[in-house]
Amino acid sequence: MRETHPNARAMGEAITVAGQAAPSGNYRIGAIVVDGGMKVLGSAFTELHSQPDPTAHAEILALRRACAGANCRYLPGCFLYSTLEPCPMCTSAAIWAKLEGIVYGATLEDAADFARRAGPGFSWRQIDIKSSYVITHGTPLLRLHEEFMRAECLKLVSS
Amino acid sequence: MRETHPNARAMGEAITVAGQAAPSGNYRIGAIVVDGGMKVLGSAFTELHSQPDPTAHAEILALRRACAGANCRYLPGCFLYSTLEPCPMCTSAAIWAKLEGIVYGATLEDAADFARRAGPGFSWRQIDIKSSYVITHGTPLLRLHEEFMRAECLKLVSS
Repeated sequence: MRETHPNARAMGEAITVAGQAAPSGNYRIGAIVVDGGMKVLGSAFTELHSQPDPTAHAEILALRRACAGANCRYLPGCFLYSTLEPCPMCTSAAIWAKLEGIVYGATLEDAADFARRAGPGFSWRQIDIKSSYVITHGTPLLRLHEEFMRAECLKLVSS
Repeated sequence: MRETHPNARAMGEAITVAGQAAPSGNYRIGAIVVDGGMKVLGSAFTELHSQPDPTAHAEILALRRACAGANCRYLPGCFLYSTLEPCPMCTSAAIWAKLEGIVYGATLEDAADFARRAGPGFSWRQIDIKSSYVITHGTPLLRLHEEFMRAECLKLVSS
């Protein structure tokens, strides 16, 4: 049976993965890639603090793992779930992979708000371009579900 | 002695690397990362056609190799040279790596023009967001040298 998006079980899985980041000193951001039957093809938390790779965002790692497993750089019919709005790097990677869509939880603005409140001791950078802006400038035109389970996802950023 | 940018020797190296792509069936797009003394820290051609990884653009591979070699995800003082204007994924990766700047040759528009002339048999997608747009929305604010040795770089795309 073909599942529909946005899907609470899939985002729940991304939240679980995000929760596994803390022991290695990484940000609690999680991402998974699911196929049309909601099978998880790849999952990851952000590994910026455990490997010397500026591209080691959760979404990039989940996409690369899913593509490696499928032995194909295209994943039509698949969705990327991320607990935080994907940056332009990650949104672009999803377009290059020809995903069907993206579902995300907390927003760029949520992360920026938290960083402001946390003060100068908390290092946080972002590129101020919405995921929706990148999607509308690429092909194929991915479906986008924004702010899904945002409150649960926001807890990962802010606690 | 600190070298200045844009630098013809560095772009020449990126062009040489691009030329190595054809035997493996890859697009002739090359990128290198150089440090302040113009030492090459990483180089790559696009490997989209030889590995199942949608992120295997020349710029991403060169950045990942340079960071792995330096054992650090930040490369301050370094420049990325690319024979083709970096897409939003690659430009964002350069920002995340805190590079000092980017130098590129042929433009997005050049590639699109060529694809139009080549007709439907030539598969080419792009995300219509200029590298300069991404740079001005991120921190640090990278220096950008556009259309450097564009004619030489354009030959790689169109011949």
